[in-house]
Amino acid sequence: MLTSGGCPKNMLSIKDALEALEGRWKLLILFSLTSGPKRFKQIAKDVIGITDKTLSKELKCLEANQLVKRTVHDTFPPTVEYAITSHGLSLEKVIEELHYWGLAHRKEIIGK
Amino acid sequence: MLTSGGCPKNMLSIKDALEALEGRWKLLILFSLTSGPKRFKQIAKDVIGITDKTLSKELKCLEANQLVKRTVHDTFPPTVEYAITSHGLSLEKVIEELHYWGLAHRKEIIGK
Repeated sequence: MLTSGGCPKNMLSIKDALEALEGRWKLLILFSLTSGPKRFKQIAKDVIGITDKTLSKELKCLEANQLVKRTVHDTFPPTVEYAITSHGLSLEKVIEELHYWGLAHRKEIIGK
Repeated sequence: MLTSGGCPKNMLSIKDALEALEGRWKLLILFSLTSGPKRFKQIAKDVIGITDKTLSKELKCLEANQLVKRTVHDTFPPTVEYAITSHGLSLEKVIEELHYWGLAHRKEIIGK
């Protein structure tokens, strides 16, 4: 079992992951993009509670970590679309486990 | 597949989880406690880079979410110990998936 021992080597990889995904928004933005590429305003609508300023900052950060790809389309006026990368999609299991745990947490703690 | 569709109902449970685990420290603190109950200073030593002030704040937050239990032992002087709860241990799979993803992320992005 991974979690028996608190091994420092495992701690490093968990730390790497948490630093890349820090905050309450990044995984929600990625989750919104799993249904397909989206415009800024569409993501803002999906991720309830996020401000435009925060979304803009988080998208830049996700792009720097190669989790999201920003594409400018040569339309008139130009349109910008964000898509999840294959590296972003590799977070699927993390998102899935968070979903299950979030369900249990609501039942156990928030629901009380 | 959970991540096909960005379903709003799934979004809520992921949001619940991310709010309870917000920041880069909580899961690392819990991971440190998986090897057994610890004193404050022992956790501070395990979780490299955390300040005493942040650790103190995070432990209170983890206690409020019933992920950590604080016990005061009637010794002289009194000693305080922190232990992971069964609800905290239910994060094992989340931590495990973050560990695997962190390994891949270091290889793919940080290592470049």
